[in-house]
Order: sequence, then structure tokens, then C-alpha cells
Amino acid sequence: MEVVPMPGYQNRILRVNLTDRTFKEEPLSDDLIHDYIGGRGFGVKLLYDDLSPDIDPLGEENEIIFVAGPLAGTSAQSFSRWKIFFKSPLTGGYFMSSGGGHFASELKFSGFDVVIVKGKSERPVFLWINEGKYELRDASYLWGMDCDDTHNLIREELNNPRVRLACIGPAGENGVKFAGVFSDRRAAGRGGGGAVMGSKNLKAVAVRGNKKIDLADPEAFSAAVKEQVDRYRAAPHFKSFSRTGTQTPEFTNVLGIFPTRNFRGGVLPGIETMDGSVFNEIRARNTACHNCMIHCGSISKIESGRYKGSWSEGPEYETIWAFSGPILSSDIGLTVAADKLCDDMGLDSISTGNAIGFAYELYEKGVISKEDTGGLDLTYGNDKPVLNLIKQIALRKGIGDILAEGTREAARRIGKGSEQYAIHVKGLELPAYDPRGAKAHGLNYVTLNIGADHCAGYAGQEIFGAPFKGKAVDRFAIEGKGEITKWNQDDRAIWNCGVMCNFATGYIDLELYGRLLSAATGRKEFEDPDYLWLVGERIFNLERMFNIREGFGRKDDTIPERLQKEPMEDGPSAGKVFEIEPLLRQYYTVRGWDPETGIPSHAKLKELGLDFTIKA
Amino acid sequence: MEVVPMPGYQNRILRVNLTDRTFKEEPLSDDLIHDYIGGRGFGVKLLYDDLSPDIDPLGEENEIIFVAGPLAGTSAQSFSRWKIFFKSPLTGGYFMSSGGGHFASELKFSGFDVVIVKGKSERPVFLWINEGKYELRDASYLWGMDCDDTHNLIREELNNPRVRLACIGPAGENGVKFAGVFSDRRAAGRGGGGAVMGSKNLKAVAVRGNKKIDLADPEAFSAAVKEQVDRYRAAPHFKSFSRTGTQTPEFTNVLGIFPTRNFRGGVLPGIETMDGSVFNEIRARNTACHNCMIHCGSISKIESGRYKGSWSEGPEYETIWAFSGPILSSDIGLTVAADKLCDDMGLDSISTGNAIGFAYELYEKGVISKEDTGGLDLTYGNDKPVLNLIKQIALRKGIGDILAEGTREAARRIGKGSEQYAIHVKGLELPAYDPRGAKAHGLNYVTLNIGADHCAGYAGQEIFGAPFKGKAVDRFAIEGKGEITKWNQDDRAIWNCGVMCNFATGYIDLELYGRLLSAATGRKEFEDPDYLWLVGERIFNLERMFNIREGFGRKDDTIPERLQKEPMEDGPSAGKVFEIEPLLRQYYTVRGWDPETGIPSHAKLKELGLDFTIKA
Repeated sequence: MEVVPMPGYQNRILRVNLTDRTFKEEPLSDDLIHDYIGGRGFGVKLLYDDLSPDIDPLGEENEIIFVAGPLAGTSAQSFSRWKIFFKSPLTGGYFMSSGGGHFASELKFSGFDVVIVKGKSERPVFLWINEGKYELRDASYLWGMDCDDTHNLIREELNNPRVRLACIGPAGENGVKFAGVFSDRRAAGRGGGGAVMGSKNLKAVAVRGNKKIDLADPEAFSAAVKEQVDRYRAAPHFKSFSRTGTQTPEFTNVLGIFPTRNFRGGVLPGIETMDGSVFNEIRARNTACHNCMIHCGSISKIESGRYKGSWSEGPEYETIWAFSGPILSSDIGLTVAADKLCDDMGLDSISTGNAIGFAYELYEKGVISKEDTGGLDLTYGNDKPVLNLIKQIALRKGIGDILAEGTREAARRIGKGSEQYAIHVKGLELPAYDPRGAKAHGLNYVTLNIGADHCAGYAGQEIFGAPFKGKAVDRFAIEGKGEITKWNQDDRAIWNCGVMCNFATGYIDLELYGRLLSAATGRKEFEDPDYLWLVGERIFNLERMFNIREGFGRKDDTIPERLQKEPMEDGPSAGKVFEIEPLLRQYYTVRGWDPETGIPSHAKLKELGLDFTIKA
Repeated sequence: MEVVPMPGYQNRILRVNLTDRTFKEEPLSDDLIHDYIGGRGFGVKLLYDDLSPDIDPLGEENEIIFVAGPLAGTSAQSFSRWKIFFKSPLTGGYFMSSGGGHFASELKFSGFDVVIVKGKSERPVFLWINEGKYELRDASYLWGMDCDDTHNLIREELNNPRVRLACIGPAGENGVKFAGVFSDRRAAGRGGGGAVMGSKNLKAVAVRGNKKIDLADPEAFSAAVKEQVDRYRAAPHFKSFSRTGTQTPEFTNVLGIFPTRNFRGGVLPGIETMDGSVFNEIRARNTACHNCMIHCGSISKIESGRYKGSWSEGPEYETIWAFSGPILSSDIGLTVAADKLCDDMGLDSISTGNAIGFAYELYEKGVISKEDTGGLDLTYGNDKPVLNLIKQIALRKGIGDILAEGTREAARRIGKGSEQYAIHVKGLELPAYDPRGAKAHGLNYVTLNIGADHCAGYAGQEIFGAPFKGKAVDRFAIEGKGEITKWNQDDRAIWNCGVMCNFATGYIDLELYGRLLSAATGRKEFEDPDYLWLVGERIFNLERMFNIREGFGRKDDTIPERLQKEPMEDGPSAGKVFEIEPLLRQYYTVRGWDPETGIPSHAKLKELGLDFTIKA
């Protein structure tokens, strides 16, 4: 099939069926581009159209869709995120996860915007896409290998060291429900995309190419990029990411929302030994994604203590938290060692830390004992078992085999009242912000279509004091949080079309973003912020309709009782609970959804051009 | 300094002094090229000239010299070995070690034939040579990292994935006396070059470039290369390396010279589970050095048993033996796992296997007990402690700290009669051929200037039945072995100038080799086999004079008493001993050395143009 590239896009979707080893190329439809722009928009629309409800997330019928945005591979800054879409084995619903590095740009250079993989290969394979050509190659010998080895050996096999990969580690192969997909230690970690790949016997997608990306208006595009760069440089805190990484503990601990002991407390003693200045000390050098001047990443190396010699790329805030707060440790060495081990094994560090924190609480409560842990002493403050537990989870050994199911399912299997200690929304474990001290942030956990995540609806108004529509926001207040949450969610859906990095969007605005999109693609409608808001809301609602088709509803827009009923135990958010009912009611109303059922109204769906989701 | 490249050579030596961080470029002298050709010739002459006797091998005054040959980086096949030269911390004498892969060709492409590093950096550094330019870069964060991580992180730091490295792992940093230097899992393993680099705080030498290698007579060179390729293709066993690797066990075990239990027996029960057909099964794919059609390397992967999931590049014969015969195991999984661990840690597998075999015998004899081993049960046949011991050696933990000194020094420290169990020559542990069943092979161990090695003087006449001057050779015979040994040693010195791989030299002859050298360099004298033999003998004798300057003499041309006095216990070589005295006397005579002292006569030295080694 001859497909003509169009500006911004390569205008090519590659469909791969692993069952019968067939390939199919498709152009992007004009409607798809107009209605969904790219990135997350493409992902949700394609997944909605392709999947039937009730399929097994780990079965042949599920898909994993890899998407690069229309600005990936261009000179625009910070558009190098890639996204994966699939029905999640952890939540049973729509899922989107996102990683950085160089995979998105290289996918574009290889000639494709989107790769859709379905079916199941008889034997382990990897998909090799090279300059518009593609093949499945044997990956039997790679099965069992960690992510770094997989990268090295595939590059060596292809004699092409500039190949970029999205691959899984042992965790994905073993069907760990929160196994991620990794590219040069950058993870699309959440939701179990790694398990989906593993279920298909797909070890990796490898991409390489030199295909250029046309621009509709190169001059206007250059001018917009120049403006973008100038704005980055002028931003007062532009260099903070490269200096101290995502040192959010300095914010969240002060607010008392740094979750400790499985979301009981909100302040971690000794956290100053893991702050930005310490990270500055252990940072060997910065790393960056393709065409991004932020250089947020870093190679960190531990030079003393129990974890001497450990290193990782990162860790970022969520990982710093995942191996400290949940078990009451503040050893920066452990966070680095655990971060690397999760990257090697191919695990989402957030869910891994939660699963381990869950086990620690079960141990404290006497629900499990050393008999269950294989002799490991899971007493708070004892960090020695952590690396062992991570390996056990990845390899599904011992208690790791149960924890590998995620806290919701693990609690169901363990029983004995352990359900109350499983801290998740829709099956997805909570990130490192206690919702009792940040109500919009928590409302986002409750209503986000993928479950409790922080990447798509982050309430910067509450965490960093960003104003909302010119006004300061009281993080404890309930009033107005429905509107803020909707705004945060739709706003993020807009940027996720680009696909722009969350760390970067604050440096520019929708007007400039629209100009970048328009100059690249020639689609004038993308210049209009109102149009972008319409698309953002459309995306969010279509995700909702995916889940509703799967049987999700108001019953799933919930959060563990602990957060609703047990007041925060300590610190500046002490005494607070998360008032889900009034928050949710507000939110549904602002969304134009039925306040009782949480289902989008027909009017809203029609307004958003989502008529096709309305059942006859 | 402006240096004009000359055909075959880049005509550039880079001298680096790590103490004061200075660099100096030198051209190759006409005499050096004429008298020593390249490779091993350059290495021994430069080392002899540069070093004073009695310096500390781990002190600032020692050098490590990296050399690529005149044919490296050309289209000639199998000339991609690189060599390192240094005074050995294991033997206290001259040392040369050799590795494969792509480092030699890339060093040439970067603009240099030779890199000489001396001094000691205050902090860990790596040397980065890029297109004729060079700099020292901080390697503090790389200190402690394994060889694979070091490769990855340096390539990432330089944003140059085609960079080639020669680096050390933790073993070299920790001064393990048999730590090697590694390039993409290809090792210049023997003699402690890794410890020398470690003592200098030199983590790696990284090279990259696009500088072409001129050829004196491109047409003649192409014709010679074509002839070389044709000869490879016509050779009956050409594909055996790529099919079964270096499956020498099938030869040595049949001859009863596969050393078991620290060189007591010569036959390993169960060896058929590690034979070529098994390696063919576990081989995922072949690997190769730059411009080599042999493809001897392989990625091996273990799919069952205790070591399931383990993989390595290789293992080659010596490593297969090192973790089987010495401890009476025949688990192919262990050999693969141990091979990879040695590559990661940066250890010579031959000396590591010997050190472990030495410990097993001490344990058997009651010289050491579980108190000394930290509870490890070193009973023959129990392979469980092996990986642990390898790590302990690399990290100098527990008993590993003593074993890391090499068997000679370890025995000296342990005492209690353990010296009789240290199987080495000049401090270098024996490779995987029992000399009692291969007398020329053993005579080479005794007289090789680096100690007991198999790479430079291999007696293929005894191991594979190759004829010598048209006649079959009796491996047990003493008569004639002096001449064969000299021939094997000088012959190898000739090929080591190229630097041609030992696996490949059998496919061509000195006549064609000479034409390749001559067409590349324009040096007509290299076409004359008689001249090549002169250079080979010159090199070997200059090495000898290096050692004599260090105080070596006949007393060091010895071999452990076990091999001289204890008859081989089992198999087709049962009852044999190694008759050192008559063998050595023959050898000295053939060499033109004083039969009492083993010192080359003045006449011999003058004949070889080595007058400068004669003390006034």
C-alpha cells in the first residue's frame, strides 16, 4: 500500500497480528486527525473501535497500541513521550501509559505514527521496524532477560546500536499485573502493559529509521519553536528539574501528604536525607529525552551505606516515595537500588511500592507471618527485605506471586479482612500524594478513567500552589474541586495529543502549543484553544464510555474506606478525611454526567461528537 | 604535532600520563616498524624501553599499552584482536594479553595504533579518544559498575552508541591480581591488566572515529584478501567454530588431559553434557569480531536446571573447563552463568577457575574449613558455592580476598603446605590442558614469558594431531619437543604482529600473511617468511630479556611438583608425569640460550638485533 506522508504525521498505522503473523498498513483517516489530533486521542479512539467489551486483557483479543505524537521527532521541545493503550489486566478497563526517551521520535523516523499489536505469538518474538519495513524475529533467547540485557542484545543482533526499544522484563513475561514497558530505562510503567506484551509473547518492539517528518509551514514552525525555547530559558525555575530532579518530597512532606505506612500518616521522618540537595550530590550527570532541553533525568550513584555501588536513572519522585514512605525507610540508597531493580525486572515502581507497603501492613496486623513471607521480617523500618520482595514479585516466587496480582486481587485472595489495606482505585494503586490533604488531586484519582494516577489530572493548584483562574486554591476545600478536576483532566488530555511531557507544559501555553501543532500539521483548527478544549473533553469522555461499555459506573468511582473514614494521623494534614460524596457529585455535574450514575448524558456525548458511543 | 599517516598504520602513538593529565603524540619510528612490524612487536619493544626494572606493577611507573595491528580496520579477515602490555601484578614480569571484538579496529579509526597510559589519576577517569582528539573524563560514577553497565553508560554519556571500549569491572578496581580488561564481553583476561588499570584509576579507554586506513597497494591488498576469503571457504572445518564453538573438551577429554580436581585427573565424567552438540543447542546466535567471517562467538542461553535463564557470550573452551573440571561439575548451566559473571565482574575465567579449584582442594585436604569459607561447602561436585566465590573474589570479600591474589600468593599467605596445591607457572595459573599428556604444550607453559598460557605457543601437534614438518607427533614423547615449542612460540609471535586471531591463522600461511602485510604497509621485507621468522624470534627473546632484567631466570622456568612427580591419576594419560629437566635442556639448546642459566647468549641476541639488551 502506498501511503503518502502528511505534514507532522507519517500517516501510517502498522497493524500486526501475532497469531497469524500478518501485517497491515493503514493511513490515518482525516476524521481521526481532525477529531483526535494524535497521541492520546488516537489511542483511545483506536482502542474503542478495535476492542469488543468483556475480552480478556491477557487474551489474544486485547491490543497494545504504541503511539507517537505529531510533534515527536520534530525540533519542538519536549514532545518525545510515547504512549501505550490497552485494556488493563490490573483494572479491567481502558488504560493509557506513557514513557520517555527516544522511542517516540525513532518510531516516527521508522515511518509510523501508530503500531497496533494484537493476537498471540506461538513463541517469543520481537517486532523490528526499520525504515518502513517490518518483521517478527525470534526472541526465545531473550525470554527471561532483564530490560538492559534485552536492549543490548537486540542492538547487537541487529548490528544497529541506535535502535530504540520498548521492551518488557521478566515481570511482563510472568504476567505481573503491574509490569511496565521500558525504553532505555524510561518506563511506561503503570497498568500492566508489560503483562499484556508478555501474554502475547512479545518481548520488544524495536524501531529505527531516517524518514523525515514534513512540516506544513516550516517557517512558522521554526518561529514557534524559537519562541518555545525562549520561554523555557526565561522561566524562573527552568533548571530545577536538571538540578534536583522531581524533588516533590520537599513539597508533599511539608503539606503532610507524603503517604506513610500504607496511607496512614503523611509525614516521613528523616525525609531530609532524600531531598533535592542530596539528589544533587548523588547525581553523576543529567540525561534527557530526544529534543528536550530540560534534562530532567539523571544517573544517580550511591557511594556509601548498605546500598553502596547501586545506581539508577532517576529515581523520580514517585519511586523515591514508593520505597520509603510505605515501609518507613528514608535510605536514599534503597530508593536508587529498588529503582534500578524495577527497571531491570520491568516493574511499575508505584504499584510495586504499594504492594510491598500492603504486605508490611498485613505483617503488622498479623494477617501474614514469616511463614507466608519465607522468613522475611516485614517490620516497619526494616528495609532489608525490599529488594528480595521486588525480585519475588517479578519472578512470581513465594509471596511475590500473590502480590504480583496487584493489591486489589491480592487482598481478595488473601482474605482475612485484608481488603481494607488494599489502597487502589479501580485496581490501580495510588501514587505518592495522600488525597486527604489534596482534594482535587484525590478527586482525580477517583474519576480518572485508568484509576488512581497522577499523570493525567495532577492538581498542581494544591501541590505547588498554582492559581486556578487567577485565584489561590485551598487544598482542603471541597467547593470548586469538581471544576478544577475537570479542568486538570481535560487540559492534560489536550497536551497528551502532542504528546508533550508533563514537566514541560507549564513553560508554554495552549496558544503556542496550538501554533506548533498547526504549523507542523497544517491543521488550522488546532490553533484554536477552544477547539483544543473540545478535543480534550472528547477524549476524556470517550475513555469514560470505553469503561462504561465494560460495565464500569459510579460504583467504581470510589477510593478505599481508609481515606474516607480514617483521619490522617499526623502532620499538617492531620485529622482530614477524603469527602468523596460531595466531591463526586460536584464533579459529575460539572462534567454533564448523570449525578446518580456517573454516565455522560446523551446531550454531552452529542456535543462532543461521541454519538457513536450511544447504544441504540 | 602533525603526523602523517602511513599505509597500514595511523603512525600515531598516544602517550597519556594520568598523574599530571598530560598527553603526547609520537609517530612510529621507521626502525620500530621495520624491526617489530606491529602488535606484539610494538608492545614488547615499547614496554622494554619505557619501564625500569623493579617497579611496582600496581604503581604509577607501570604502563598499560594498548596496541592495534597494522591490518586492524582493513578488509583483511580476522585481524581485529587488540593487545595490552604491562608488567604483571600476578607474575611480576612481562605480560601481554589479547582481546577481540571491535576495539582494535575502532582504535585505528580513531587515529592511533598505540595508546600508552602511565601514572595514576587522582580520581577515577576514562580516556576518550575521538577522531584523533582525546580527553580524560570523570569516571567516579562508573566506579563499582560492572562491565556491561560501564559500556552502556559511557556510550550514553558520549551520546555515541558506536563507541568501543576497553574497560574494567569491580575486580580490576579492587586490584584482583587476575582481573582482565573487557570490550563488549571480549576479554584480554589474563595476567592482571585489569588490576593495572584499576591501580591507575582508569576505568576505561573509549574510542571512536572514521579515519581511514591507507593501503600501500590497494589492488594487491584486495587480491590477497580475496585469496584469504577463498581459503577460508575452502577449509574443511571452516564452519566448526560457528557451529560448536571451541569445543576442545571433545579432544582433551579423549586424550585424558582435561584437568580435574586441581590437576590430578584428566577425564571428567559427564563431559558429554557439555559437548559441541549441546552448545549448538544452547546457542541463540553467533557473534563475530570486526571483519571476521568465522563468527566463532555465540550468545548462549540456559533454558532449564539450576541456572535456567543464565546467558553469556561464549563460553569458550577455557571457561567451560574452568568451572567444571576443577570442582568436578559438568553442569553447562554453571559454565554459562560463571562465564557471564566473570565478564560482568571483569575477571579472567581461567585464573578464577583455578583459584576456586585450589580452594576446593584445600577444603578437601582440611587446610581450610567452613570457618574460612564463610560456611560454603567446597566439596567436589557441589557447584552451589561457585557464583558466590566469583563475587567474593571480585569484591575481595571473605576468602575471596585471599584468592584474589592468585594461587601462588594465596598459598604463601595461607601456608600450611598449601603451596603444593597452587598450580601456576611464574604466578600465572595453568590453562585447561594437563601438561603430563602433552609435553610440548607443557614446555610452552614452562618457558612462555608470561607464564602458563595457551595462546602463544599452543601445541596443536599434540592436541589436534597437526603434523610438525610433515610428521605426526607423539604427545608423550620428549625428544624433539624443544624444537616444536620454539617453533610454536616464534610462529605465534609472528602472527601476533598482525594481529591475527589464533582461530584463523590455520586457514592461511606465512606467505599470504606476508603479502597482506606488505600490500597494506608497503614494507616489502614483510613478504619474506624468513624475515618474519627472524622478527618472531626477536620478539620472543626480547620478552625473555625483559624478564631477565627483572631477575627472572632458570629458577622461574618451572612447573608445580605435582605435575612433575604425581602421575596422572586416570584416563588415557594415566601414569604420565611431566619431565621438565630434559625438556628444558633441549629447549634452551634449540633457543641458543645458556643451558644452565636459560639466558640468551650474546651471539643470539646480536643475531636478533637485540644488542641493546646486553649489559655493558
